[in-house]
Amino acid sequence: MRNIKLTIEYDGTNYAGWQFQTNAISIQEIIENAIKKIIHLDIRLNSAGRTDAGVHAKGQTANFKANIQIPLWNLKQGINSCLPPDIYIANCEDAPLDFHSRFDAKKKHYRYIVCRSHSPFNLNYSYFYPFKFSIEHIKEASQYFLGKHNFKSFTPITSNDVQYIRSIDKINITEENEFVHLDFEAPSFLHNMIRIMVGTLLENARRNFHPAEIKNILLSKNRINAGRTAPARGLFLMKVYY
Amino acid sequence: MRNIKLTIEYDGTNYAGWQFQTNAISIQEIIENAIKKIIHLDIRLNSAGRTDAGVHAKGQTANFKANIQIPLWNLKQGINSCLPPDIYIANCEDAPLDFHSRFDAKKKHYRYIVCRSHSPFNLNYSYFYPFKFSIEHIKEASQYFLGKHNFKSFTPITSNDVQYIRSIDKINITEENEFVHLDFEAPSFLHNMIRIMVGTLLENARRNFHPAEIKNILLSKNRINAGRTAPARGLFLMKVYY
Repeated sequence: MRNIKLTIEYDGTNYAGWQFQTNAISIQEIIENAIKKIIHLDIRLNSAGRTDAGVHAKGQTANFKANIQIPLWNLKQGINSCLPPDIYIANCEDAPLDFHSRFDAKKKHYRYIVCRSHSPFNLNYSYFYPFKFSIEHIKEASQYFLGKHNFKSFTPITSNDVQYIRSIDKINITEENEFVHLDFEAPSFLHNMIRIMVGTLLENARRNFHPAEIKNILLSKNRINAGRTAPARGLFLMKVYY
Repeated sequence: MRNIKLTIEYDGTNYAGWQFQTNAISIQEIIENAIKKIIHLDIRLNSAGRTDAGVHAKGQTANFKANIQIPLWNLKQGINSCLPPDIYIANCEDAPLDFHSRFDAKKKHYRYIVCRSHSPFNLNYSYFYPFKFSIEHIKEASQYFLGKHNFKSFTPITSNDVQYIRSIDKINITEENEFVHLDFEAPSFLHNMIRIMVGTLLENARRNFHPAEIKNILLSKNRINAGRTAPARGLFLMKVYY
């Protein structure tokens, strides 16, 4: 028995997210079917994160167990040859038998990309935000998210999560030409948490609210006080740390 | 009467090229229809270059004449509101009445993007070339294209061009991470000329042919001696100089 760890890149535009669904096409289903074509066995993939519809990945990880002999290079080439062009296995390796992509993940790095000018080339890979805002304002406001907080205001009211405490290790805001990158690192995030944080930061900066307003929104533990959920297309799962 | 000059960006993936065709959707047709919706007049666009199917533009220019009063800002916003998201009017300005986008163009800048590693995010915007090649080799070989030559070897045999002399002012080859940019500037190019030059340069470097081989291919005036036509998706019309 082997435990194979995959590192996966995908353009999430055309999929209903990572997780298998009976009534829509998921990235998980597409990859599981491709693997089956190569190893002739039914497998189930465990992934580090279940990205939503339209969210992209440059470093998603997943693992599966199977009793196979195929060399890693052939396995990688074989699976890729059965995948559509918007999903790509970037790496294939043997992991210890007790390795689990989700439970063993120490930290995840997500990037949200905002674009200040409209361009036909970034439509599916960034959030075009036409309003003026100061990057320094966003940097200052984002610091209130750092550390351990109750993030109930930053997840949908309908969310099934019962434990709202999360701890953000690192936030980095950078600007390059017309793009603003918002990088977040944490052991785990609530559903939609990054997209609501980004929507709230943009609104806070655009309307020139006091940056410390973020603290009040966190303390209120009420979704209604946070900003809009930023669209999925700007979000990338960059890397999972083990 | 006014003469309006447009600067246009488009993702060419979904279109049969710039030029109007009776049996396929062209970028010209889409923009002409959008303009008609705003000014309620039939117009014909003159463009600087007729890009092929799949070729992109960051700085295509076109002009049209019409007896209209609408302010430029409203015209730009109006046309853009009637365009699909992969075509965008970046600028709209009044030009002298005798201005013609094609005949007055002094120089065009095209960029060809080659990508050394596969990624789901660049599929339509670069040519994934998996073979090893030296950037220095390409730089050296590309210099043989500079200046005035007969480019008959670098256009399809079926081409309708009768005058094959063209003069390339500038070639610049740069590398950034996994991307290689090949920039060409000339008053005009033959049909498919840049894509055949790129295909030939890549083959010359990959197979480690002598860079001066380019000179022999030019002198042969025979398409059969040049390399494959690189795919349209890597080519961008960057800017037209007047």
